[in-house]
Amino acid sequence: MAEKDKTKTISGFSSMRKRDKIKWMAKTFFTDPEAVMRELMSYWHSSDEQQKILDGFSENTVSNFPMPFGLAPNFLINGKTYCVPMVIEESSVVAAASSAAKFWMTRGGFKTEIIDTKKLGQVHFLWFADKQILTDHFQSIKEKLIEDCSDISANMNNRGGGILDLELIDFTDKKENYFQIRASFETCDSMGANFINTCLEQFAKSLYEYGTNITGDANALEVNMSILSNYTPECRVIASVECNIEDLGNFKGSMEAHTFARRFRDAIEIAEIDPYRAATHNKGIYNGIDAVVLATGNDFRAIEACGHTYAAEGQYSSLSHCKIEKGIFKFWLDIPMAVGTVGGLTSLHPIAKRSLELLENPGAKELMSIIAAVGLAQNFAAVRSLVTTGIQEGHMKMHLKNILNHLQATDTESEQAFSHFNDKIVSFNAVREFLQKTRDVKV
Amino acid sequence: MAEKDKTKTISGFSSMRKRDKIKWMAKTFFTDPEAVMRELMSYWHSSDEQQKILDGFSENTVSNFPMPFGLAPNFLINGKTYCVPMVIEESSVVAAASSAAKFWMTRGGFKTEIIDTKKLGQVHFLWFADKQILTDHFQSIKEKLIEDCSDISANMNNRGGGILDLELIDFTDKKENYFQIRASFETCDSMGANFINTCLEQFAKSLYEYGTNITGDANALEVNMSILSNYTPECRVIASVECNIEDLGNFKGSMEAHTFARRFRDAIEIAEIDPYRAATHNKGIYNGIDAVVLATGNDFRAIEACGHTYAAEGQYSSLSHCKIEKGIFKFWLDIPMAVGTVGGLTSLHPIAKRSLELLENPGAKELMSIIAAVGLAQNFAAVRSLVTTGIQEGHMKMHLKNILNHLQATDTESEQAFSHFNDKIVSFNAVREFLQKTRDVKV
Repeated sequence: MAEKDKTKTISGFSSMRKRDKIKWMAKTFFTDPEAVMRELMSYWHSSDEQQKILDGFSENTVSNFPMPFGLAPNFLINGKTYCVPMVIEESSVVAAASSAAKFWMTRGGFKTEIIDTKKLGQVHFLWFADKQILTDHFQSIKEKLIEDCSDISANMNNRGGGILDLELIDFTDKKENYFQIRASFETCDSMGANFINTCLEQFAKSLYEYGTNITGDANALEVNMSILSNYTPECRVIASVECNIEDLGNFKGSMEAHTFARRFRDAIEIAEIDPYRAATHNKGIYNGIDAVVLATGNDFRAIEACGHTYAAEGQYSSLSHCKIEKGIFKFWLDIPMAVGTVGGLTSLHPIAKRSLELLENPGAKELMSIIAAVGLAQNFAAVRSLVTTGIQEGHMKMHLKNILNHLQATDTESEQAFSHFNDKIVSFNAVREFLQKTRDVKV
Repeated sequence: MAEKDKTKTISGFSSMRKRDKIKWMAKTFFTDPEAVMRELMSYWHSSDEQQKILDGFSENTVSNFPMPFGLAPNFLINGKTYCVPMVIEESSVVAAASSAAKFWMTRGGFKTEIIDTKKLGQVHFLWFADKQILTDHFQSIKEKLIEDCSDISANMNNRGGGILDLELIDFTDKKENYFQIRASFETCDSMGANFINTCLEQFAKSLYEYGTNITGDANALEVNMSILSNYTPECRVIASVECNIEDLGNFKGSMEAHTFARRFRDAIEIAEIDPYRAATHNKGIYNGIDAVVLATGNDFRAIEACGHTYAAEGQYSSLSHCKIEKGIFKFWLDIPMAVGTVGGLTSLHPIAKRSLELLENPGAKELMSIIAAVGLAQNFAAVRSLVTTGIQEGHMKMHLKNILNHLQATDTESEQAFSHFNDKIVSFNAVREFLQKTRDVKV
């Protein structure tokens, strides 16, 4: 470590008071520490109590990072109309979702089907004794493991959920001595992470105890780790839209309905064939999905890991599909996701709580439906733009607007800029230079 | 649509003023509209100008969704010490990153290697004429396409980047008439989405024109879409740590170093073997990665789609790997990601801008290194917990603290709650009931 860098390390940081953390950071890394401190503190909530709650969600928190909280109204899903809260920093996403929602509202809306809501967890262990002992005893091991969890699962059982099954999986062809217990759970309206992980850690204790008993050997097995799996292919929802091809209309006067339908289906087939396209295609779906996941206090890393792993069954491919049959255009999204509407941050984060109220306090299945519909809407709008007008014109306009806002351009300057950049690439520097020139001329 | 639901749809929403949007939403969907409006408005920034900038990032924005902005100090990466900004709503992530950073700081720190920074884009098209004409002319098509883009790429060329290559890919074995131009780009310190997409849309125009010319047929080809690919396997970084096994020490007194090293490697091998474990393992890596991606104004959906697609080459597998050789423990993360430190939100979002300043204004390659190091640190801390103490004890404590904060428990009540929930599952309802009982007793 260079000598000057030693001043950049710190001990006992986590126990420092928030103001002292900010002060240390500002003085150590910034040339304008006072301004940095003022700026970070300007994002604190005016109520100390509220801010304390926000600070508690993570560690070493010094401020709030503001993400845009927007609304996509007119979502007709399974016959019910929603105004969907979306938290996303990328432009055009909320506009696209809203536009697709409105389009499908007059064409029957979105329909969804919940395949199942089964969650999974795993106890990974090495079994050094005779394999036969393990397989012979697995039924009784399973009963004991479930029984030992009865206190832990009592509440979840009362809510209609609990431990569903335990399965022994032999991985010894891939790694010596490696076995796994794959457990399935129903966690009702909660995402269930705490419940599942507590059960699994108890399973591990019981497994060790019982394995030791039946083999008479304290070294018969070693539990490596016990943790839920974010890959829950059975906790899945299918969202779909369909209409007569003629009813697809003529988007921005770009092409007639049959051509559009065929080009749209081609684009989906391309995403099914080519992983390089599929990644981007699915990324667009998650633009919509993650925005609702964030808004409702759910965990987008979990949702992404699950969906991409599902997309990777076989060759990595598209999560949405399209069919044209007997004059009907059908488009659907088939996607696993584990979300909760109770527990976690759902009732702790003030805006996440309001988001769920805005959705009229859905259960987990209804939230899965809403999220999948938004993902499908997002994908519809993106592919529609791609196969008709292209996306750049719209994107460039949004980007230019943001930069003009930032540079506090007047209305006249903005008008001039829009005209100037009509056929040019928008960049922060290019816009700043343009404004400087315009302003110099005026002076 | 049910009659009552008609009142929940709205026309012309996007053109309404922000206050009117909030008012409509609050009156239509809430029983306490005044309180909702007050609450949403309480999250606006005190400066109208600043708020206008934030509102402009997305559409139909009505408030800011506060995400915790935290700090992970003591990250020694390639000999330089960083205090890393992290934006994450999940507890334990920043604590874990900080703990792993401090651990490796005294063991040589993180080393990284940038493999390449090549970005990709695609023009997807159907070619109805003789395939031979296309392949025979591709070299001249390529030259023409690049030439027609010279105005667009002039600025990027000046910055040392630009269009690198165009490749023709024949997909006709998978879909009739389907070909693709896969273009590669160097976009220097920008993520480059606007540049790439503008080039691609120009390629598409030129391709159509030239294809029509060489075939003498206006229907010889049809461009389906032109768009960047988020899958950039060559835009990749490898982050690693290593030390003597003895130097791994004894984490929380749980086991001696050699046992720990072996158990740790087993856990990584399990994530390499089993997609159900790999999804969760990689999810943990993205807990760290996305937090820095968000803090620096980059796009986590793009980063996730890219990394998971890379993890899915062959069978979906772990992005990190571990080796024990000649008494040395080595652990590394091999991950593609396309990030920018100029353009996009990086200079527009006030806190993202401060995040980059805190990192001392890195270029894109340095930011890739920092992000990968945080992902590796996160993974190290998570797997270390899993193979030693388990994660539940720590998680439950954090969760309990959050709920107690929310319920405004006194210090005495909190102490009682921690003792009571020592061996019980923490849930919002259980804690509320516990507090109510305690409070009733006092009354």
